Amino acid sequence: MIDIRDRVRNQALQAKIVSAEEAAAFIKPDMNIGVSGFTPAGYPKAVPLALAKRMETEPFSVNLWTGASVGKELDGALAKVGGIKRRMPYQSNKDLRAGINGGKIEYCDLHLSESAQFARYGFMGGKIDVAIVEVCAITEEGHLIPTTSMGNTASYVQSADVVIVEVNTTQPLELEGMHDVYVPLDPPHRLPIPVVKVNDRIGTTYIPCGVDKIKYIVPCDIPDDVRPFAPLDENSHRMSEHILKFFKDEIKAGRMPKNLLPLQSGVGNVANAVISGFVDSDFTDLEVYTEVIQDGMFDLADAGKLKFASGTSFSPSPDGLRRFYENIKDYRQKMMLRPQEIANSPEVARRIGIIAMNTAIEFDIYGNVNSTHIMGSKMMNGIGGSGDFARNAYLTCFFSTSTAKDGAISAIVPMCSHVDHTEHDTDIFVTEIGLADVRGLSPRERARKIINNCAHPDYRPMLLDYLERAEKATKQAHTPHIINEALSWHSRFMETGTMKK
Amino acid sequence: MIDIRDRVRNQALQAKIVSAEEAAAFIKPDMNIGVSGFTPAGYPKAVPLALAKRMETEPFSVNLWTGASVGKELDGALAKVGGIKRRMPYQSNKDLRAGINGGKIEYCDLHLSESAQFARYGFMGGKIDVAIVEVCAITEEGHLIPTTSMGNTASYVQSADVVIVEVNTTQPLELEGMHDVYVPLDPPHRLPIPVVKVNDRIGTTYIPCGVDKIKYIVPCDIPDDVRPFAPLDENSHRMSEHILKFFKDEIKAGRMPKNLLPLQSGVGNVANAVISGFVDSDFTDLEVYTEVIQDGMFDLADAGKLKFASGTSFSPSPDGLRRFYENIKDYRQKMMLRPQEIANSPEVARRIGIIAMNTAIEFDIYGNVNSTHIMGSKMMNGIGGSGDFARNAYLTCFFSTSTAKDGAISAIVPMCSHVDHTEHDTDIFVTEIGLADVRGLSPRERARKIINNCAHPDYRPMLLDYLERAEKATKQAHTPHIINEALSWHSRFMETGTMKK
Repeated sequence: MIDIRDRVRNQALQAKIVSAEEAAAFIKPDMNIGVSGFTPAGYPKAVPLALAKRMETEPFSVNLWTGASVGKELDGALAKVGGIKRRMPYQSNKDLRAGINGGKIEYCDLHLSESAQFARYGFMGGKIDVAIVEVCAITEEGHLIPTTSMGNTASYVQSADVVIVEVNTTQPLELEGMHDVYVPLDPPHRLPIPVVKVNDRIGTTYIPCGVDKIKYIVPCDIPDDVRPFAPLDENSHRMSEHILKFFKDEIKAGRMPKNLLPLQSGVGNVANAVISGFVDSDFTDLEVYTEVIQDGMFDLADAGKLKFASGTSFSPSPDGLRRFYENIKDYRQKMMLRPQEIANSPEVARRIGIIAMNTAIEFDIYGNVNSTHIMGSKMMNGIGGSGDFARNAYLTCFFSTSTAKDGAISAIVPMCSHVDHTEHDTDIFVTEIGLADVRGLSPRERARKIINNCAHPDYRPMLLDYLERAEKATKQAHTPHIINEALSWHSRFMETGTMKK
Repeated sequence: MIDIRDRVRNQALQAKIVSAEEAAAFIKPDMNIGVSGFTPAGYPKAVPLALAKRMETEPFSVNLWTGASVGKELDGALAKVGGIKRRMPYQSNKDLRAGINGGKIEYCDLHLSESAQFARYGFMGGKIDVAIVEVCAITEEGHLIPTTSMGNTASYVQSADVVIVEVNTTQPLELEGMHDVYVPLDPPHRLPIPVVKVNDRIGTTYIPCGVDKIKYIVPCDIPDDVRPFAPLDENSHRMSEHILKFFKDEIKAGRMPKNLLPLQSGVGNVANAVISGFVDSDFTDLEVYTEVIQDGMFDLADAGKLKFASGTSFSPSPDGLRRFYENIKDYRQKMMLRPQEIANSPEVARRIGIIAMNTAIEFDIYGNVNSTHIMGSKMMNGIGGSGDFARNAYLTCFFSTSTAKDGAISAIVPMCSHVDHTEHDTDIFVTEIGLADVRGLSPRERARKIINNCAHPDYRPMLLDYLERAEKATKQAHTPHIINEALSWHSRFMETGTMKK
């Protein structure tokens, strides 16, 4: 067993150090288990792997509450053995996704800011039975130093009577001090969340736990299962150019300060590409208030353009993670992790005036966005924090390449096959073709702008044709639709393999 | 002319008293005009009527920014003469609606909490040119005492260089002191909104204006164009019973305090009926944090069950308005009007833990809600504040009778023809048939609960049949849909006059 005694600072607690198997034996069928982790960062690994092993010969399932997606050692391993009954919120593991779309795992796709309180309020069906948490170290007082994510960990630990702690020796001790732990009171006792600037400290650097709650301590030396980003391609580069030009025009028009407002950008390649675009720009003193801190943010920091980045997890590529660990002494000065309840807080997002930049699966001509469902039925990952930010941002931007599947799918459709963000929430759409600013416009105006500025030339005439025929077909229509044709593009794709006629 | 000199407390200002025609002559084509008013309460009447008259012979149009719907003397009169070019946000006037659905008026349907800041940020296309505001009185300092609504008035007055004030002598002076005026700073300077309890006072009792900004003062003696509610019918009564029983069960389960949490209820008959249901219940010390204070709230107050009600407008029936004026000295102790930016604030809604109760046009088996569009195309009124509350409430409830048009329309459909509130936002559905609690459930589970508990027996087998066939037709589906059949119920209604097969 790996020696973790130097990371368990309370000597009495060292008696609770056990193997992953021993800790996993504590788990009972149907338990509600809250875990650390947000994107493949800071989630427990050893105990879930041991639990999955146990489930192979002793089949049962549990309810799994996370921060967001977690790595293959948790979502993947448990899903493979049928060990997850109910799961919330966001996910991105292929085995888990297959279980969800196969109707075998009940998936509750909550806004990330709401997931902790939803569990605390008892809305997930009963209280939490056990929290399993990855840490860097345990303090004298039995408090927990988180690792590469905050997620819902603090809330789960607070609510649980029993906590199993994984001490991960691959996580550097320099992470200590980078967290700001604050769990709001529940109504009717809640007070204002006092974050006014992105770097405001409002809580503790540790998760309050205490020695009594800690049942087992398990050593772990498995690193975060981070994944590489796609190389920056021409389309991402163009989208980045469009939005940077737009920001410059907004500053000229007096609608934005020179260093913009705090940036939020979603998980994944496009978001990462957009942030990277700032590196070669004239922008300085940029602030970030977001969920995941990815490679692009490190680029910004290294280029001296980052004032401060607040997130809820470090979710870089393997190269990025190496870079982060190497430069952690510098990055510590400019980066902080908060619970997702605070990082994604609607209250804070609206107050500080976030610029929200997220990716869409598809959007429609009237400005509704599908972030979750392929062809209306199949779950991709989940809404994540996009709704927290889109609803409350100063400016809400959605990005997508104009087509997918080698042009067989248009990302811009007459009507979304699933709606996660409504026309009431969206301001700016960006594809590699161009940018549509739909603020203050009526649906008919929005449609023309989105089609003309963002649609791929192959689909533009088809979209315009739909709009014009819909306007003629409907006598009284604010949002003209030919209702039995509105989803025909999706039908056509499923029948013929392309949305083209 | 009516004598309003006793209500214009600054003697020098009395020189600015002019006729409505003279004030209306100030308005130029394409001006951005911000007005007081929220629901048919507290909106200017004399100047808009004079402006509409002027437009009859001198056709031009303006951009009209309100708080929400306003009365026929404003929305109606201007729409009838083609005087509105662009309009935001919520509306309910039939002539305005016809213009919007006819593609003649560009309507921007914003969340009510966002509309003031959207205008301040310059997102509506330029700044405000003139504010036209109904008041009870003008103070020595030139500050404005609002009447029966707060809406966006304070923000519009703050942003405008020129203010035209209508002093309405039908509005009682006892309204003075019932308002709490607070306009947040804009990012990056905004601070926490310090409302922690529903009755917290955080601002002034008047709208800061000053004598210099006031261009004209116009007398008016036209009362608010309030409208009667439908009598409480059997269906409303049943919905009220379902939700009250549910609340009692939540209290038993320890998920709600004995006096519940602050109630929000939408505009209109059903919401009013639900609130009225509390009058004969055992609940006491109820708190209300909502948009409109309607007759049901007066019933609650008279029954001694209301601790405090905070809203942004008084929008009762004609009888209710009479009752309000008669009992204003009592009601003043227990009621307060705030700007809609505060009344509908996501920050405050989530903090104090609102119970949101709003009406749906239709909802689908997976829990998405259409609040705005008839058959996907035709605008009814607008999203209003439902999104502000639904996204941030402690508990989000939607109400609808299970059918409309004598049973020809099912309010529960396979897929909504327009989505205003997504599956991620909804907790409780109520029809006269029953209540579906979908918290923590996956889409397939939600569907069965909604169909079995809420759908009309005439449509229940059809909905179950759709769900089961969709589950079979899709191999990988979190939210099973037969995409070319999902909107077929709407098509069928438009073709045959009924959703029934």
